[in-house]
Amino acid sequence: MADIRSLLKEIDNYKSRMFGKDFLLTWEKSGDELKQILAIADLLKLMRRENISARCFDSGIAVSLFRDNSTRTRFSFASACNLLGLTVQDLDEGKSQIAHGETVRETANMISFLSEVVGIRDDMFLGAGNAYMREVGEALSSGFKQGVLPQRPVVVNLQCDIDHPTQAMADLGWLKEHFGGLDKLPGKKIAMTWAYSPSYGKPLSVPQGIIALMTRFGMDVSLAHPEGYTLIPDVMKVAKKNAAESGGKISVSTTMEEAFKGADIVYPKSWAPYEVMGKRTKLLRKKDQDGLKALEKECLANNARFKSWECTEKMMKLTKKGKALYMHCLPADITDVSCNAGEVAAGVFDRYRIETYKEAGYKPYIIAAMILTSRFKDVHGLLGKLVKQGKERIA
Amino acid sequence: MADIRSLLKEIDNYKSRMFGKDFLLTWEKSGDELKQILAIADLLKLMRRENISARCFDSGIAVSLFRDNSTRTRFSFASACNLLGLTVQDLDEGKSQIAHGETVRETANMISFLSEVVGIRDDMFLGAGNAYMREVGEALSSGFKQGVLPQRPVVVNLQCDIDHPTQAMADLGWLKEHFGGLDKLPGKKIAMTWAYSPSYGKPLSVPQGIIALMTRFGMDVSLAHPEGYTLIPDVMKVAKKNAAESGGKISVSTTMEEAFKGADIVYPKSWAPYEVMGKRTKLLRKKDQDGLKALEKECLANNARFKSWECTEKMMKLTKKGKALYMHCLPADITDVSCNAGEVAAGVFDRYRIETYKEAGYKPYIIAAMILTSRFKDVHGLLGKLVKQGKERIA
Amino acid sequence: MADIRSLLKEIDNYKSRMFGKDFLLTWEKSGDELKQILAIADLLKLMRRENISARCFDSGIAVSLFRDNSTRTRFSFASACNLLGLTVQDLDEGKSQIAHGETVRETANMISFLSEVVGIRDDMFLGAGNAYMREVGEALSSGFKQGVLPQRPVVVNLQCDIDHPTQAMADLGWLKEHFGGLDKLPGKKIAMTWAYSPSYGKPLSVPQGIIALMTRFGMDVSLAHPEGYTLIPDVMKVAKKNAAESGGKISVSTTMEEAFKGADIVYPKSWAPYEVMGKRTKLLRKKDQDGLKALEKECLANNARFKSWECTEKMMKLTKKGKALYMHCLPADITDVSCNAGEVAAGVFDRYRIETYKEAGYKPYIIAAMILTSRFKDVHGLLGKLVKQGKERIA
Repeated sequence: MADIRSLLKEIDNYKSRMFGKDFLLTWEKSGDELKQILAIADLLKLMRRENISARCFDSGIAVSLFRDNSTRTRFSFASACNLLGLTVQDLDEGKSQIAHGETVRETANMISFLSEVVGIRDDMFLGAGNAYMREVGEALSSGFKQGVLPQRPVVVNLQCDIDHPTQAMADLGWLKEHFGGLDKLPGKKIAMTWAYSPSYGKPLSVPQGIIALMTRFGMDVSLAHPEGYTLIPDVMKVAKKNAAESGGKISVSTTMEEAFKGADIVYPKSWAPYEVMGKRTKLLRKKDQDGLKALEKECLANNARFKSWECTEKMMKLTKKGKALYMHCLPADITDVSCNAGEVAAGVFDRYRIETYKEAGYKPYIIAAMILTSRFKDVHGLLGKLVKQGKERIA
Repeated sequence: MADIRSLLKEIDNYKSRMFGKDFLLTWEKSGDELKQILAIADLLKLMRRENISARCFDSGIAVSLFRDNSTRTRFSFASACNLLGLTVQDLDEGKSQIAHGETVRETANMISFLSEVVGIRDDMFLGAGNAYMREVGEALSSGFKQGVLPQRPVVVNLQCDIDHPTQAMADLGWLKEHFGGLDKLPGKKIAMTWAYSPSYGKPLSVPQGIIALMTRFGMDVSLAHPEGYTLIPDVMKVAKKNAAESGGKISVSTTMEEAFKGADIVYPKSWAPYEVMGKRTKLLRKKDQDGLKALEKECLANNARFKSWECTEKMMKLTKKGKALYMHCLPADITDVSCNAGEVAAGVFDRYRIETYKEAGYKPYIIAAMILTSRFKDVHGLLGKLVKQGKERIA
Repeated sequence: MADIRSLLKEIDNYKSRMFGKDFLLTWEKSGDELKQILAIADLLKLMRRENISARCFDSGIAVSLFRDNSTRTRFSFASACNLLGLTVQDLDEGKSQIAHGETVRETANMISFLSEVVGIRDDMFLGAGNAYMREVGEALSSGFKQGVLPQRPVVVNLQCDIDHPTQAMADLGWLKEHFGGLDKLPGKKIAMTWAYSPSYGKPLSVPQGIIALMTRFGMDVSLAHPEGYTLIPDVMKVAKKNAAESGGKISVSTTMEEAFKGADIVYPKSWAPYEVMGKRTKLLRKKDQDGLKALEKECLANNARFKSWECTEKMMKLTKKGKALYMHCLPADITDVSCNAGEVAAGVFDRYRIETYKEAGYKPYIIAAMILTSRFKDVHGLLGKLVKQGKERIA
């Protein structure tokens, strides 16, 4: 990892206009902006190791709204906010008056009078999660403009139906560390593949986030899934456009073997087919329990046809020198550990376990960097000041 | 808004003896004390805009106990505590051992060893909420006196069966801003009226809080509700006494029209009749589900007779120049938005939406001011010191 | 209480090697180490009274995991963390992805990237709670060693199946205060007795914690319980060994009277027989609801034979001069207050109520002392620095 001085210089060199803007999709940010976030994450990590406080808020609320279960992202968000001096306040829709028919616009303002950040996970409904975040963002902009809010809190996407930017960026940060720099990534082959899982209905946001982000950095992205397990068409277009611009590649195949062949990195992970997620969304909205059960049964039966999509030792042998880097957003469905048959063989997972933990360890710093770049106009100046102050994090 | 220097001077001029005392009912505080709280709220708001830290606690716990759902008040309390440097710890009675028959006296002490504030919402049972807060307060006084607690935490009423002081004071703060000063309020007519809602059993604390507080500031309070929808008789007496002392007025009518006529301000809001709340309390205590269902049915049927009690454009035309200020504690039951028929027409609400948000925005600062005045003997000195220090809230 | 200067000197004199080690069982710590924790707790209490900030973390997460209900320990942990500058983040297993078959090893790392402490209550399953804490601790050690975690967070046992060290140490701190020093304890008789309760299945950790700890300080520990209500045999061995080493005593009798006779201190408290807890654990794991009901019925019937095991006025007369100190971890089952027949008569409890509250009041400081000794290599130096700095806790 570069030292503090050179990281500060690097941060200063990027052209960045993220101040005041939400972080909703990686492809709404420029390459320089994404690189700046990675550099800031590295700096924050280094500052913490050097016991330099990154506390830049003396007070301030960070709202967290999780519409789906979460351990890692919840703790990552809490840790990031805490590092900067913010206090997390959960918006628990069950304990609130939101069920009374309150509008999104109103709730967004009511929770934001003294808030700096709003982190949202909303990945259950296709076509809804990201849209909800935008609705919150617009309500906050309007509230700020009209004098309701003394500041415009920033929305951070903690996973939606389209993208999982804090995950994808943490993954990129890990690749940068692992391979020794972003400049080492062009031409590297990453296999983003479907894998079998005994559950169904897993969000599409991780594979979508990966193919859309890694194509930006010149990588050779090989997407593979059984027929029918397609992703959102619009995101496929984004990935193609990105690859074309960066000199990278994006290809799609229907066997795991093809994707794994010669790969430098493999990312085998289950997801539900785009069409199934669409159907499921409709049924969930109608609260059609029978329909949901029928769909689940049908899908599990369909999934079961693809049990061979498992990241086994044999499959790993197909990769470059048999030594591709295994990645996962965690928790993985590990055969014979968390289930009878899953995404990855126990032996493979265990060999790369520490690596996947390190991958996950980037997330708190990525989130903190997203908050800093969106809330501070002169983020380089701020970080320089914090480093110069050198206040001890632990006495 | 006045500047920092003049607000500090104003705060110093009020005679105030709130130190060490709970904030349970506005009518237990003197006029000077209420004015001081408004001035401190204004100062805290201004300090925040000027990026001056109001953090006066380096550590300290603020207990929050919500026995009813809440979004706004929960976030307001959390924001107020955070602004001052306190950390909120929820007392979740479901996850505690309170069900084991533990006494209020014991619980109050057990949660308060390092606590500075205890915020309580308890508005479900008529005759119980405010009484519970007093029981907690007495337990804390006794615990402090006997050396169990190193400090006497202060109780802040976040809504009870009798009053909703943080709401009523936020409303008053908003009226002060909107009309340009408390001295502009005498003689202004405020219509505190019942309004139709598709739900029943809403607490009486908001209308009671409003009529008891606004009569103190010389306003002409016009209470209106369908026959039978009376408030707690004792609070009516308080309002009458207040009006007599301040030169204000309090009148009661049985049509919305009469109250709206010539009003400067309208506050149309649903509540359950005092007698119904009494019956409901008995049934809730007996856990008589059948009785509760029967009562709900009866009440909804009764409510339905008064669907015309809606704040429509036509109704608004009756007010002074057709331009009265619309107020609501939120969330409102908005016709065609959150329900088929509700308290207010969508058009009216939308015209005043930003105003109601600004009204709500006072609550965090009001709560913070209540905490400061009850926990600091020389609150003027403290605020002067914080302003002089001028520590940045955001680096 | 000794003054700050002499406490600092005392802390410096103890030989202590607690840095980097979890606090799981009191008998894994040396006598000097336990005494140091008590002295630090006293110092922190004094610093707070003198308005000296003990904040030594500028940021940092403290994870809390409660697998059983808690009020006192939850608030004590939250208060301790807050006093030191740490922010508590609850690990709510219901809202997490842990149900997905995630390993303990993985979860432990995922929640700890920026964490300093992990507090765990896990007292439901005999043979499981303490083992779980050790599994977490090993995962954290491994994660730290392999570069996943930038620090090794420390595990604090907030009650397990074997010990309740924060309770037992708080009890010891209270005895030290009450009798005027640890040197006053040798030879004092403490009756740790079973008592009747209308519930069953209470953990064994409190009586076990007490007999194992008090025997270390030369006390004459008289354990009494109805036949069959034995504790974990291994803990009995620990108590015997401790007594032999310290010059104290441990005796077991089958009547409350014998234990109370001439006692300086009585600690009457219900628990379930060791064997029953073993059976219950098996049934809970099998989710055998019928079996659990049958066991509960059998046990309650068995308990009912021992209703005379109540700490009444008559029973108290047997103690030294009829004035033994009554202790309880709270909440107690108080006859005619929280139940019809319980552990203690209302009159007795009320006479000692304030004392039991003071006993409980030690817990936040004990926990804070456990965190400091495990996270700071030179805890004496740290405390000296904090005292010298003399930063005000409240402005």
